[in-house]
Amino acid sequence: MSGESFFRSRWVDRPAHVTEVEPDALPRGFRAAGVHAGIKPDGLDVGLLVSDRETVSAVRFCDSALVGAPVAVTSEARTGSLRAVLANSGNSNVADGGRGLGTARASQTATAEALQLDADLIALASTGVIGRELPREALLSGARGCAAALGSDTTDFCQAILTTDAGPKRACLDVALPSGNIVRLAGQAKGAGMISPRFATMFCFVETDAELASETVELLTGVCIKRSFDRISVDGQLSTSDTVIAFANGASGVRVEPESPDELALGEALDALMRQLALEIVADGEGATRVARIAVEGALEHVELVARAIANSPLVKTALLGADPNFGRILQSAGQALGAGTPFVVDLAIEGIQVASAGTVLDLDGETWRTLEQAVEASEVEIALTLPGEGGETEVFFSDLTHEYVTINSEYST
Amino acid sequence: MSGESFFRSRWVDRPAHVTEVEPDALPRGFRAAGVHAGIKPDGLDVGLLVSDRETVSAVRFCDSALVGAPVAVTSEARTGSLRAVLANSGNSNVADGGRGLGTARASQTATAEALQLDADLIALASTGVIGRELPREALLSGARGCAAALGSDTTDFCQAILTTDAGPKRACLDVALPSGNIVRLAGQAKGAGMISPRFATMFCFVETDAELASETVELLTGVCIKRSFDRISVDGQLSTSDTVIAFANGASGVRVEPESPDELALGEALDALMRQLALEIVADGEGATRVARIAVEGALEHVELVARAIANSPLVKTALLGADPNFGRILQSAGQALGAGTPFVVDLAIEGIQVASAGTVLDLDGETWRTLEQAVEASEVEIALTLPGEGGETEVFFSDLTHEYVTINSEYST
Repeated sequence: MSGESFFRSRWVDRPAHVTEVEPDALPRGFRAAGVHAGIKPDGLDVGLLVSDRETVSAVRFCDSALVGAPVAVTSEARTGSLRAVLANSGNSNVADGGRGLGTARASQTATAEALQLDADLIALASTGVIGRELPREALLSGARGCAAALGSDTTDFCQAILTTDAGPKRACLDVALPSGNIVRLAGQAKGAGMISPRFATMFCFVETDAELASETVELLTGVCIKRSFDRISVDGQLSTSDTVIAFANGASGVRVEPESPDELALGEALDALMRQLALEIVADGEGATRVARIAVEGALEHVELVARAIANSPLVKTALLGADPNFGRILQSAGQALGAGTPFVVDLAIEGIQVASAGTVLDLDGETWRTLEQAVEASEVEIALTLPGEGGETEVFFSDLTHEYVTINSEYST
Repeated sequence: MSGESFFRSRWVDRPAHVTEVEPDALPRGFRAAGVHAGIKPDGLDVGLLVSDRETVSAVRFCDSALVGAPVAVTSEARTGSLRAVLANSGNSNVADGGRGLGTARASQTATAEALQLDADLIALASTGVIGRELPREALLSGARGCAAALGSDTTDFCQAILTTDAGPKRACLDVALPSGNIVRLAGQAKGAGMISPRFATMFCFVETDAELASETVELLTGVCIKRSFDRISVDGQLSTSDTVIAFANGASGVRVEPESPDELALGEALDALMRQLALEIVADGEGATRVARIAVEGALEHVELVARAIANSPLVKTALLGADPNFGRILQSAGQALGAGTPFVVDLAIEGIQVASAGTVLDLDGETWRTLEQAVEASEVEIALTLPGEGGETEVFFSDLTHEYVTINSEYST
């Protein structure tokens, strides 16, 4: 691999046992495709990712009362042994009642027939506008077109799942295990807006040719989501269609046993992959120019609420845009989240410079102030807040709120 | 009175027994002033409002863990019989520790001396940047300057309390009571950003020359806040300094008895006054071009959460800017607030046109669609959501999210 590392964020290190290969490569036994089916006016809009062998798989969805038909249909599939995912952009097939469910089921059946598989081995994922009819024939012809065009790279597949994303988000890694074996791990993600709690408005598909126990796939997927897609926010808005699917097909012939050093090493690689993909989503947040990490320590019942309040405050987010170390707004947001009656004894540091102690803003000398002003102009900014109490520790990565976000979302339309 | 009525919003009617007088007039026995004291680079920045007679008063503050020194000091004053409020803009005196508290107390004392009153009869209210030292001498000289400049109108006072507001928000009303007496009621408000739950980042000072029991002032203030400043959101951000003070000084000689028809009539006038002032704050929300009302009915435990989620969704707010009847985003936001596992059986209407039934978006014909598109271009837009369940009913007024909001808040700075 030449060029810049996939692990671009200061908050994610490439594990020493991980080697980057071509980002659109796939592990053995997986194929992918993407076609233009006419759901979007132009560009690729339907993608298919397939394992040629049986898999052990795990799925996770968003936590909303309103979910799309693809989420509902996939939830009823054989989620522990999925063979393929059919994904489309341009229309999320949400709130379209029986018609939307019918289209989802028809696309599942059409994909299964084209792949000569049982329908309940096919997962679905749709993203795009909510509350509009997803053109059924277009989706079905897209599914068939993809099945006929499957290849060994994810280039077209990654394009087909994008909405307002600036570009594809994907990586492929060779993971050297302590046992001496090497397995391959790849991931493809999308997401830019409607990104918040419970792993955000996004898709992430992960494939490995390691042979894994079901408990390993479930464990690693669950743990890594909690440290990645569950810790990001672009706009505080939970999608109706978030979908993460992990597939392990064993094509490498390398068995990774539960609770083994190999499982730990694979988990470290998956953690780095998913954290970087999550950070790509924040950095590519609609209109985003800068990413911040708010880390909060203190009482367990407060840390998550306070971190989310700060990450989603439009005042904090516009200050981040303005490269303005406006700690007043961070404190205000924490005060709102804590509520009346809670002692406001908080410490605040930005880029390691303490700016408030026990709830009182410190007088900074001119040089410290200049250092701080320079630090907040970076593309990634670190904020640390300490609350009273113990036992809680969390982080949220968030983007700034920009004119471009307003433009995108006032013009992107029904 | 010539010109446009103060009661501009479609959601507030002028009660038939209320007559508008000059908006910067005051009831008998009240005086006000505003001066430039140098807290802001230019413009009036310190204001004083005084009752020449004893009063019955009520105060309400924001509900944050972090409140300004003026809120803390006023909380310890004789809040049931306040004689004056000293207010300033340009600096909110928040998170400045003992120094900030000292400045607040010194300004209370200086005002009391200038007015020859006890210090604990003086309320304080500061608005502006958080976490910076409020220049003590400037504030004190402003207090003395105001005390020497008191007059019968609120013109300068209203100017002195503004921050990013486009202009003053005030009205003065003559209220014809069923008993045949007339009392006067005036109110002055400020607020444009950091506006959310628990009556928003704002000040509102209300004066009447009616003679009221303490229980009446408390009751009317509490009830009217719940229907006005507690129901608005510009950006979902709770201030550290929200302050509402109501003064009744009896200078009219008209006694309004508790639980009398006169009390009801005065309450109706106060309700209309405070609702319109609250709507002025939303309409003047930083960068706002359009105001919407989201009304939610259904299960008591859900309505507030859902209404707030919709009012504060940047996706709904940018759609409002774009005059885009994007019901998908309203449904998505409701789905997020309700959370996984809650049946999503909701009805949605925009400007009386039903657009979703039982969680499914309806197919609208071309003419209905055009009617809807025209309706959402108005300056005030009505949205109604019905959830499963009963016993709950609420409303939130909110502004759109605009480029100008981003400009103001990325450039307004420490």
